Amino acid sequence: MTRIQLSPADATTLAQDAFTAAGMPAALAASAARALVAAECDGLPSHGLARVPFYAAQMRTGKVVPDAAPRLERDGAVLRVDAGFGLAFAAIDAGASAARDVARELGVAVVCITHSHHFGVAGQAVEPFAREGLVALALSNSPAAMAPWGGNRALYGTNPIAFACPREGAAPLLIDLSLSHVARGKVMLAQKAGEPIPEGWALDAEGRPTTDADAAMAGTMVPAGGAKGAALALMVELLTAGLGGAQFAWQASSLFDDKGPPPDLAHMLLVLDPARFAPGFAERAEAMFAAIEAQDGARLPGVRRFADRATRADTIEIPQALHDTLRSLATT
Amino acid sequence: MTRIQLSPADATTLAQDAFTAAGMPAALAASAARALVAAECDGLPSHGLARVPFYAAQMRTGKVVPDAAPRLERDGAVLRVDAGFGLAFAAIDAGASAARDVARELGVAVVCITHSHHFGVAGQAVEPFAREGLVALALSNSPAAMAPWGGNRALYGTNPIAFACPREGAAPLLIDLSLSHVARGKVMLAQKAGEPIPEGWALDAEGRPTTDADAAMAGTMVPAGGAKGAALALMVELLTAGLGGAQFAWQASSLFDDKGPPPDLAHMLLVLDPARFAPGFAERAEAMFAAIEAQDGARLPGVRRFADRATRADTIEIPQALHDTLRSLATT
Repeated sequence: MTRIQLSPADATTLAQDAFTAAGMPAALAASAARALVAAECDGLPSHGLARVPFYAAQMRTGKVVPDAAPRLERDGAVLRVDAGFGLAFAAIDAGASAARDVARELGVAVVCITHSHHFGVAGQAVEPFAREGLVALALSNSPAAMAPWGGNRALYGTNPIAFACPREGAAPLLIDLSLSHVARGKVMLAQKAGEPIPEGWALDAEGRPTTDADAAMAGTMVPAGGAKGAALALMVELLTAGLGGAQFAWQASSLFDDKGPPPDLAHMLLVLDPARFAPGFAERAEAMFAAIEAQDGARLPGVRRFADRATRADTIEIPQALHDTLRSLATT
Repeated sequence: MTRIQLSPADATTLAQDAFTAAGMPAALAASAARALVAAECDGLPSHGLARVPFYAAQMRTGKVVPDAAPRLERDGAVLRVDAGFGLAFAAIDAGASAARDVARELGVAVVCITHSHHFGVAGQAVEPFAREGLVALALSNSPAAMAPWGGNRALYGTNPIAFACPREGAAPLLIDLSLSHVARGKVMLAQKAGEPIPEGWALDAEGRPTTDADAAMAGTMVPAGGAKGAALALMVELLTAGLGGAQFAWQASSLFDDKGPPPDLAHMLLVLDPARFAPGFAERAEAMFAAIEAQDGARLPGVRRFADRATRADTIEIPQALHDTLRSLATT
């Protein structure tokens, strides 16, 4: 597969132009383009520019409302953000900006973002807080992929959890995981290659373990930690779509076609100001991080992502075919 | 093993008397006794009356400060509770009582309980909120049991996560899990019985998978979901001991002997008022619960615990030897 190199800035312009050509106002398009290019820079192309054609197509059919401006309401320490069935990124930005102030004022802020779309890279939603000295947790639901434990029909998304903790003089501690044992994309790749999948990845449509990729795609993903991951995924559904008034995973439409109603997903951010807790948080956290790094074979969560990012500061690489598609969309 | 039946009320009096005989004021002793008996009623004897002899012994050596009255400070939406190196239960009660009001006022409350002891049954800390219409999440650290992923020395506890969601006309949805794949008690039982353990439960002191129970007890527990459970356990350490100024798992002393300094563990409660989020939360949650219950083989988290509890409303059963010990402690 031929690949093409371009700068993150050029990639951002290209994606932004593709979105504006589909009817999105420039500021919203810039926010979305930045987030998708940031995923490319972090070595997460599944959450990157490959999404642009789907989103542009969805804007043209109204599955994504291209000019939805996020509406923010504050109520105590709660920030409600209505994404208005647009993409998630501007809504996350709006909620995050307000959450900083509320967390500084009251010690904690909870942001509930509803009527939204794909969360993007969950870590992106928490990392900026940690860079300003705040601790942040992010949760999102996503379209149906996992069954309740013991069941066979998908009711929960793979529902990411991200967490960021500030460090002095170093990149934040960054945890970013989804609640399935492995990403569904791995099963898709095996299916395309006509290969079996390892045991423990997926269940068939009857809820039985399977190593057949076709059966797995017709079935459900195994939750991380079995019943425990399924329970946490349910918790995330309730804290996001439940509180937000959005669609649960099993009610949400696909992120990858332009048919049907908006996906209507929801996200939650929890932001804490460590200055409002016991003194010495930074020193204690560093003691923990040093204890982790002292062990051969162990590393701090997030370290690999930041290393990947450093190698892509000037240049990212995308498939030629995707580049052609983006150029075509940008000039439509 | 001979077992003896007694009423929850009599068991509570017995435990309370054992604690007061060790120097604990009556109100604190009552709070601790109630929590331990509630664990027995829920079919969780590992968190029940078997703890009383350890705690009484620790009060006598000062590892538990018997008359530590929790000190509570409010700062915005944050409640800091200093358990003063006493048992956890009165501190949890004090934090929970204040958190209700703060969550009603500001939509969210965060309780940080520090200088504490064993959290007890994590679900107990969240269930009362759900019975009053609030959503609650609880986290605690615990003594070292799990290594960072890829490492071999235990830095994290098995760190419970509990979550409760209100239901109209039914017991709450209750999630209560620890972040190890299985409880360490299962390895201890196998060790006592001289039996091997299944693969995937534990690692030896070099971080290698083992089925030898002795090697497992000298090593670490496998996190639920592998690297993901380890990352979540780290997150819990930072949110509890990190923010609270308590000891991380690897710094905390044993809960099961009367030697050394206090364990100095920490807990966090997050309480949300669904009335401050989108209208219709209860109806949406019920739609999710109905979808779960419609699947053969699936059930709502918490259902089994409440069923167990119903069978023990009038009578619990404890080993004769434990009963003898409690009676002896109560009359010392």
